[in-house]
Amino acid sequence: MASVIGESGVREGQVVAELEKPVHCEFRTDPSRYRHWRLTFDGPVATLTMDVDENGGLVPGYELKLNSYDLGVDIEMYDAVQRLRFEHPEVRTVVVTGGKEKVFCAGANIRMLAASAHWWKVNFCKFTNETRNGIEDASAHSGQTWVAALNGTASGGGYELALACEHIMLVDDRSSVVSLPELPLLGVLPGTGGLTRVVDKRHVRRDLADYFSTKSEGVGGKRAVQWKLVDEAVPRGSWEETVSRRAAEFAAGSDRPADASGIELPELAKERTDGHIGYRYVEASLDRARGVVEITLRGPDSGAPVDLAAVHAQGAAFWTLALTRELDDLILDLRINETDLGTWVIRTRGDAAHVLSYDALLLENSDDWLVREITLYLKRTLKRLDVTSRSIIALIDPGSCFAGFLLETALAADRSFHLSGVFEEVDPDAEPATITVGPMNLGPLPMGNGITRLATRFYGDPDALAAAEKSKGVPLVAQDAERLGLITFAPDDIDWDEEVRIAVEERVSFSPDALTGLEANYRFAGPETVETKIFGRLSAWQNWIFYRPNASGPDGALRKYGTGQRADFDKKRV
Amino acid sequence: MASVIGESGVREGQVVAELEKPVHCEFRTDPSRYRHWRLTFDGPVATLTMDVDENGGLVPGYELKLNSYDLGVDIEMYDAVQRLRFEHPEVRTVVVTGGKEKVFCAGANIRMLAASAHWWKVNFCKFTNETRNGIEDASAHSGQTWVAALNGTASGGGYELALACEHIMLVDDRSSVVSLPELPLLGVLPGTGGLTRVVDKRHVRRDLADYFSTKSEGVGGKRAVQWKLVDEAVPRGSWEETVSRRAAEFAAGSDRPADASGIELPELAKERTDGHIGYRYVEASLDRARGVVEITLRGPDSGAPVDLAAVHAQGAAFWTLALTRELDDLILDLRINETDLGTWVIRTRGDAAHVLSYDALLLENSDDWLVREITLYLKRTLKRLDVTSRSIIALIDPGSCFAGFLLETALAADRSFHLSGVFEEVDPDAEPATITVGPMNLGPLPMGNGITRLATRFYGDPDALAAAEKSKGVPLVAQDAERLGLITFAPDDIDWDEEVRIAVEERVSFSPDALTGLEANYRFAGPETVETKIFGRLSAWQNWIFYRPNASGPDGALRKYGTGQRADFDKKRV
Repeated sequence: MASVIGESGVREGQVVAELEKPVHCEFRTDPSRYRHWRLTFDGPVATLTMDVDENGGLVPGYELKLNSYDLGVDIEMYDAVQRLRFEHPEVRTVVVTGGKEKVFCAGANIRMLAASAHWWKVNFCKFTNETRNGIEDASAHSGQTWVAALNGTASGGGYELALACEHIMLVDDRSSVVSLPELPLLGVLPGTGGLTRVVDKRHVRRDLADYFSTKSEGVGGKRAVQWKLVDEAVPRGSWEETVSRRAAEFAAGSDRPADASGIELPELAKERTDGHIGYRYVEASLDRARGVVEITLRGPDSGAPVDLAAVHAQGAAFWTLALTRELDDLILDLRINETDLGTWVIRTRGDAAHVLSYDALLLENSDDWLVREITLYLKRTLKRLDVTSRSIIALIDPGSCFAGFLLETALAADRSFHLSGVFEEVDPDAEPATITVGPMNLGPLPMGNGITRLATRFYGDPDALAAAEKSKGVPLVAQDAERLGLITFAPDDIDWDEEVRIAVEERVSFSPDALTGLEANYRFAGPETVETKIFGRLSAWQNWIFYRPNASGPDGALRKYGTGQRADFDKKRV
Repeated sequence: MASVIGESGVREGQVVAELEKPVHCEFRTDPSRYRHWRLTFDGPVATLTMDVDENGGLVPGYELKLNSYDLGVDIEMYDAVQRLRFEHPEVRTVVVTGGKEKVFCAGANIRMLAASAHWWKVNFCKFTNETRNGIEDASAHSGQTWVAALNGTASGGGYELALACEHIMLVDDRSSVVSLPELPLLGVLPGTGGLTRVVDKRHVRRDLADYFSTKSEGVGGKRAVQWKLVDEAVPRGSWEETVSRRAAEFAAGSDRPADASGIELPELAKERTDGHIGYRYVEASLDRARGVVEITLRGPDSGAPVDLAAVHAQGAAFWTLALTRELDDLILDLRINETDLGTWVIRTRGDAAHVLSYDALLLENSDDWLVREITLYLKRTLKRLDVTSRSIIALIDPGSCFAGFLLETALAADRSFHLSGVFEEVDPDAEPATITVGPMNLGPLPMGNGITRLATRFYGDPDALAAAEKSKGVPLVAQDAERLGLITFAPDDIDWDEEVRIAVEERVSFSPDALTGLEANYRFAGPETVETKIFGRLSAWQNWIFYRPNASGPDGALRKYGTGQRADFDKKRV
């Protein structure tokens, strides 16, 4: 796969299904470059207005009519979500509304979906899901409540965006409705959390939900309220006033500071060549021959700054935040641009004590809004790793710093290798590699299933969990880490190369699909939440449906939509 | 689809993928007809020995070597599970073991899987899952503990069968192992609960589980115990003695009666033609033109017998048990033989008071072993309905008896219609149809998610749940049932035909795949359990993987297995 990025941002060899132009995706953007959203501010209330540029599709071949969206639209929205949290501490309510007449948002663009390859659809849905989960996270944990002000019809993904908000207002004008027309019109599911949130979050009765999801014309007005599909239906006459009032009410309940200054999120410095992606603290080496990405996360150059003021002063340069932004961008880049590199090998380099001092500074100041945002962002980024369909192998060797927050990446891995002793021929005097459990591993960074990676690892084994937690603060050499069950294998110098090589080569030789399914099951032992149900139950079914001829075949519903012809279904129930 | 059953039990027009012979499946069997299992008894211990007849495949085209199984083998096992519970109250431990040398069971037959159509594979896995869940149900609730005595290697589905047992013993002979080789050898998942039970039930650490599931040669001996893959590894010298001792220990803890007589489960009387399936209390009319099955469940002819002795005396003729057996067989028959009939319409006929009197008799005698078995079987059969990939519509009209246990079928439906008033032109003097919540709806029949259908229906709405529960014993006409949220719609005489017709026709017009996904999401609001994770997360991923070319394409791993050629994988990670 040729992969030199041309000036147009387009890379050869990567074709999105039938769409003509290949595409390379970058996730870095900022409001000055938005084509689809307007972000305005009024004291504690920000308004994010969706006003999609019909001709601004990420890939040529479709028009983004009726505020429908593609990945490009969602990349901008993700950027807005992030900036609202970091750059605008004063914002306590975010009102998301539409900039078109009559329609709020028509959901994901159907022609884009119909023309896209399977892997692109799945990737697109995963990212949109993550962004919507991030919106819920803001309402739940950041004191920044999202309100959906549906000033027109919200269908499909448009309604699913609303479902991710804390409060849904629908204009009551006898024509505006909410709807999930995916099943009747397209033969697929509302796969961006729709089915799960309708019953599991909003508690719509399952039979009404079923009816609603087969009725392409949707439900509006009082009935939508009665069925709990929206929280209120507001006449057009009092729309503006009611939206403002509601926004102010939610703002009043927030603990975000009124007088703080946000920190700027400057564009990430990133070097990208065919074989290498480099940032300040993160780098990745792309080994196309082996199908492997070698990722290195670098610890801070020194201990944490002395106080909270320094965190604010450093802002985006503060190590934890800087590294998290880089890791986030790397995950997104690799997921969509490097689908053939199925195994990620993660290493760390640096001083564990420094890493732990950064963690400690964050935990000591957890009531500060910025510290809270950094920690929540860390949590979200690690969750992104958990749902990434790549095999992850962590290598713990001398010079590494898998401690506290960085240890989470090893705990997120499918397998880890911890060198017992040192590489005698390389550096016989090196300190043997250690890992250290820190307070950051004991609660602040739960997985999507609501429990920590340690608790998931030792699910059903409270003694092992307690022993691992009790090791807090103690650097553990390989034998100790193995005994505590914190790493998978502890080969010595003599076996290391061979064991690691075999593990990676084996992984690369397996069916990528089966690995994805295996990992999606084993990574989520224990409880399920709305979030894990979305990525587990809902997305897995959607992936199956997306791949079936009834949806994506030449006569499938996705392909036939808008042609005036009906889909020709194989009636067999599987 | 022609569907006259010939004398050979083979029906024209139904082809299992590339396998040459079409097949019609019957699930009725008995030990005298078993080809693959031996059932022996020794006081409180029964031994179920798997000894598969290589040439006894359900469909020609493969040999069932190494105790591998197909649907036919599993149909016999399901029969054994049922008979052990009803016919053998004295059995407190069931030891499942193998009748071959060296190998306990090699899992599902690979050539059968490779040659089977997608719908067949999915159906097969669903049934095997249900049977294994039934085994767990026996250990948990019937005082009949299942012990896996692995007298040789248990791989894939063989190990998954063991995972469904309460206790796993593996012979420690340096060659016998447990393994899940599906991923490395076949490019699919261990889809009969394997992945879920390894981490969520047996609490194997996720990274060890990952390693284990990629290592086709498996794990045996002490390591298997250490990793919690089995409970004990027993040397061959003390094998028989230890298995006997363990069986006796589990038997000692059981509350099953030592001196009771079992009841016989005679072959179900069943009439089956192209358009009709009839039993004593259940009948189904197959409307191939519309793609609909009209199912009628008949209430008892009179009130319940006066006492427990009569329940035992009536045995399999006792209405609740008789109807449940018939419904169970009907579900299984329709699921595998009538895949094109995607919508099931359920009606009841009879006297609600009679139904409730049967429920009452069961609940008053819930500490009786037989009553317990009947109630547990009821629960399992309703669960089977929940995971059935057919749209279910309940029609509540005059003459119906949706009360207590029969009301569960309406609560399991995706949608229900309750006639408001009566059919004026048919019988103006009829009593308007009512439904009645009974004690059987309030706990004894939980869904796979661990809560009742009522609690699932009103998930997140405790007030509505309480109001519905409070209506216990009160016959509710349509308006009352609608107000309480117990039914979906309450059309009157004038609208009934049209509304029902549209609902059914619409359903039939939609993508069968999307409906399956929709229903699998909406039916399981609320908590998740090992059981729902198996049917949700695990099965949905498996279905996707089964359908992908990396598994089932001409160069996929399932097809290439045993050919000496390697599968040619599309390396793209989706």
